[in-house]
Amino acid sequence: MAAKKVNVAILGLGTVGGGTYDILTQNHDMIVRTQGLDFCVRRVLDRDRDRVVARGVSPDAVTCNIDDIVNDKEIDVVVETMGGVEPAGSFIAKLLESGKTVVTANKELIGKCWHKLEPIAKAHGAGLYFEASCVGGVPIIRTLNESMQANHICELYGIINGTTNYILTKMTEEGLSYETALREAQQLGYAEFNPSADVDGFDAVYKLAILSSLAFHTSIPYTHIYREGITRITADDIKSANELGYVVKLLAIGRREGNRIEARVHPTFVPKDHPLASVRGAFNAVLLTGDFVDDIMLYGRGAGARPTGSAIVSDVVFAAKRKTHEYTDFAVSDKPDAGMEIADDFTSKYYIALTACDRAGVLAQVAKILGDCGVSIGTILQKEGKGEHATITFLTHTASEKAVTEALARIEKLEYVRSIDSLVRCL
Amino acid sequence: MAAKKVNVAILGLGTVGGGTYDILTQNHDMIVRTQGLDFCVRRVLDRDRDRVVARGVSPDAVTCNIDDIVNDKEIDVVVETMGGVEPAGSFIAKLLESGKTVVTANKELIGKCWHKLEPIAKAHGAGLYFEASCVGGVPIIRTLNESMQANHICELYGIINGTTNYILTKMTEEGLSYETALREAQQLGYAEFNPSADVDGFDAVYKLAILSSLAFHTSIPYTHIYREGITRITADDIKSANELGYVVKLLAIGRREGNRIEARVHPTFVPKDHPLASVRGAFNAVLLTGDFVDDIMLYGRGAGARPTGSAIVSDVVFAAKRKTHEYTDFAVSDKPDAGMEIADDFTSKYYIALTACDRAGVLAQVAKILGDCGVSIGTILQKEGKGEHATITFLTHTASEKAVTEALARIEKLEYVRSIDSLVRCL
Repeated sequence: MAAKKVNVAILGLGTVGGGTYDILTQNHDMIVRTQGLDFCVRRVLDRDRDRVVARGVSPDAVTCNIDDIVNDKEIDVVVETMGGVEPAGSFIAKLLESGKTVVTANKELIGKCWHKLEPIAKAHGAGLYFEASCVGGVPIIRTLNESMQANHICELYGIINGTTNYILTKMTEEGLSYETALREAQQLGYAEFNPSADVDGFDAVYKLAILSSLAFHTSIPYTHIYREGITRITADDIKSANELGYVVKLLAIGRREGNRIEARVHPTFVPKDHPLASVRGAFNAVLLTGDFVDDIMLYGRGAGARPTGSAIVSDVVFAAKRKTHEYTDFAVSDKPDAGMEIADDFTSKYYIALTACDRAGVLAQVAKILGDCGVSIGTILQKEGKGEHATITFLTHTASEKAVTEALARIEKLEYVRSIDSLVRCL
Repeated sequence: MAAKKVNVAILGLGTVGGGTYDILTQNHDMIVRTQGLDFCVRRVLDRDRDRVVARGVSPDAVTCNIDDIVNDKEIDVVVETMGGVEPAGSFIAKLLESGKTVVTANKELIGKCWHKLEPIAKAHGAGLYFEASCVGGVPIIRTLNESMQANHICELYGIINGTTNYILTKMTEEGLSYETALREAQQLGYAEFNPSADVDGFDAVYKLAILSSLAFHTSIPYTHIYREGITRITADDIKSANELGYVVKLLAIGRREGNRIEARVHPTFVPKDHPLASVRGAFNAVLLTGDFVDDIMLYGRGAGARPTGSAIVSDVVFAAKRKTHEYTDFAVSDKPDAGMEIADDFTSKYYIALTACDRAGVLAQVAKILGDCGVSIGTILQKEGKGEHATITFLTHTASEKAVTEALARIEKLEYVRSIDSLVRCL
């Protein structure tokens, strides 16, 4: 049987676009043989004509004008690997309006504008696929959509940002400070010159908005997700975690119980024997729990040209085989669905470190305030004093976030307490 | 939009069939809402009418005659959870001939008879789905088929049998003997009264035949897979592994290099920091390596009514949404494809333990024979002697299986060597 010819355009031939192009050309014959699809990269949109031609694209195929792709009736699928909200968002809207299927790796765009793009895709019978937007080569979206249909998913825990996991792994295994580990990540190209999107947790929030919406079948807008990055994690926190039997990870957490949803991204003490604890360096993983399947974990490279390109091409193949496309089973929105509560409080164990005057009675005062707020102390690890000050570190039992926040506000005002140094939630 | 009504029949309402029925009834409304599919279990084939009715199936729906299902034009999808090759195989053939889509959890049947069933499915436009045949709730087949299309998969390593992993975990963590751990597994229902299918590696071989064929896009008949079970693994092997920095796992290994394929199931020393080393108890995992995606690992429960039921219902949903079904991109066969070599030799490091007279010169003799065969010793761990005998244990450097086998045959004939006690391959 003759393979089906499928013409593809790529918007942006940078790192990920380049990886995608490499797969479509280097593995072209294997894809013809195994999938019955004969892909041809007919157009590339890129301002840097030279880098595109250097990769082997014919100069005639390069354009700077999106309309050359929108109006080309021969093009079936368009891959968007420009990144950023604009102009990528307007380009995709135009393409969907013309009935073209779009495959994108753009987590920021889907995280922020999914609710605008999906109705356009639906209205024009076009496909909108974004496996590559979350966790690189790891097939987490396909798994949620095509393998977990039998389950109410109740929990989702993910290490879904490679940059922060690299930094935290370096701090843990080599005792580096946050600043040194960040610098190393920047030198290796794992972190941007302005690292905020990663280290402040924005990237993980966009991905969690997408993944938790799909897992729980309801809109979880990124604006409703609690976000805390890793910039305040110190070498001391890492050391204390280790002593207490934990490693520090930036976790994306989604939980559903009835109509109540928790969605949050923050550094977390993860017990060393937990499956996520051993996810090191640039690797990522997502652990799901369903009512029938129980725990499932998917692990792999969360970023990079080749793994992300693999996810894109998997979407291109998946899309190219379909005559009609599916859309989400809920109305994607920038507001939570009616009747659903996205909780602004939750319970956790907490690791707390504070600096206080090294004198009798301070710990008792601290414990009293915690107790008054309903927070009880589990393990105390009082550290060496430095001069007249001492660092007090402890783990609480499970307590509500609001109670802990209130207690710390009161503790901070105590005469002999100099500073609250750390507050990290524990799994 | 009204949900699409889909009538389902289940063959065999035992453990896994029961789990499937529970999902289709307990999660019925969620599946209507999220998938647009309204499943109705219209028929159950089972000789034990009472257990079926006790689960809540209407007595009128129970039958012992497969023709009641074959001839029922209202039935769209049939779930086979009887197990065993016959009569399941004949029933499935009849159902496929009548154009009905079949979803099965039967690894032995698919492992042995895939090449007979797939052509029937294809000839009649029926679907044949078997996600549940491999690794319970873990979506490994969907991932291979729908997420790895961009890649040449070059390696696949799996812990794909829950019973043996439970036994080996107990031996490792509690120091139990093989016999005691097996008895415990039998008492808990993890191992059969006749445990051979699991402990002798047959179950893992059927699964590896399926998974490696899909991964490498070529027929790998189960008869061509090297098989060695865990029955000869001793508490001493487990202890030595631990001292050397390994844990013992029953691994299913598939590797492809050009047209040469390795496919084997055997106990393996796995380095403690390898992602598969921490897969404990009844959990299973598969690690894949693709040329673009790099390493991907999927982890979850490898057996049980609920996880396996989850995989079955995921196939039922996947199948019910399709107007046409896909078939493998190679001719499934009970012989390897022309031009493909399924290797009967491979290279590995080896752990070897032997008992010899405790006298000078024996180790030198052993080392000489190994050297003559091209096998060099890496680490030696000579153990305490017992009476006049001593146990000698060592790791080799990478060597060919044939060379090691030949060397051991010669070593066994040495005057002062009493027995070769262990030979375990290392990852």
